[in-house]
Amino acid sequence: MEFMDPTHILLVEDDPNDVELIQIALDSYNFVNKIDVAADGEQAVHYLFGRNGQPPTQPLPRLVLLDLKLPKIDGIQVLEMIRSNPLTRNLVVVVMTSSAENRDLKACYDLGVNSYIVKPLDFQQFVEMSRQVGFYWMMLNQLPSNN
Amino acid sequence: MEFMDPTHILLVEDDPNDVELIQIALDSYNFVNKIDVAADGEQAVHYLFGRNGQPPTQPLPRLVLLDLKLPKIDGIQVLEMIRSNPLTRNLVVVVMTSSAENRDLKACYDLGVNSYIVKPLDFQQFVEMSRQVGFYWMMLNQLPSNN
Repeated sequence: MEFMDPTHILLVEDDPNDVELIQIALDSYNFVNKIDVAADGEQAVHYLFGRNGQPPTQPLPRLVLLDLKLPKIDGIQVLEMIRSNPLTRNLVVVVMTSSAENRDLKACYDLGVNSYIVKPLDFQQFVEMSRQVGFYWMMLNQLPSNN
Repeated sequence: MEFMDPTHILLVEDDPNDVELIQIALDSYNFVNKIDVAADGEQAVHYLFGRNGQPPTQPLPRLVLLDLKLPKIDGIQVLEMIRSNPLTRNLVVVVMTSSAENRDLKACYDLGVNSYIVKPLDFQQFVEMSRQVGFYWMMLNQLPSNN
């Protein structure tokens, strides 16, 4: 895998309210240095793979939080691209979506998602869940080092 | 995937002290109905795939907690068997090990492990971490239903 920033999250989310709630939840931890937001699937693809033949301008994130219903390129396609590229295939991808449809769950597990979280409707529950997700993947889960 | 019991954990662990600590941690949750223990890799393989040509005698677990350094068949081989069998390839497998060796981390991610946890040496930290791992995978993470 390419060089990775171990304090860095890519949040792929088109709903500005959800972005704000997740940022509030994760800002309470000082282990998250930076949350970059991609507002659609195309932005996520450019962020991870570069654009116009140029490589990405930043290291890979430690964690990708990926919504499914996204403009331009949907989340399942983004996941598929991540898993089929040798530079990104071992990235930790956690789907966070309002969809609890079995078809979506199955597609994501078939593509090798690390985890699938259904967003609670209640906003306080949503903040608390985002905190738990952030803590688990940024603090407990271990990744190989960059070499 | 085959029929799965959503309240059920398979713990693959040869150290009886660690088994006891993990059971204490998870018994505090009433969402874990049953923790089955495989004390080596061979027992885990029999549990998941059956033995002597017979199918397994119980449904698949919701979560496999997998130690790496195991007698008979090591954890990385068990993970490889899980991921290469269509009936078990989407099982959630979390490695919990004392090894923080980059070679082990890399092998597990290359094989598609869901998550990799390094056991803390302090036993209270170990219990707390086991609780957090159990909560995340049994309560927050969603799986496709059985169909």
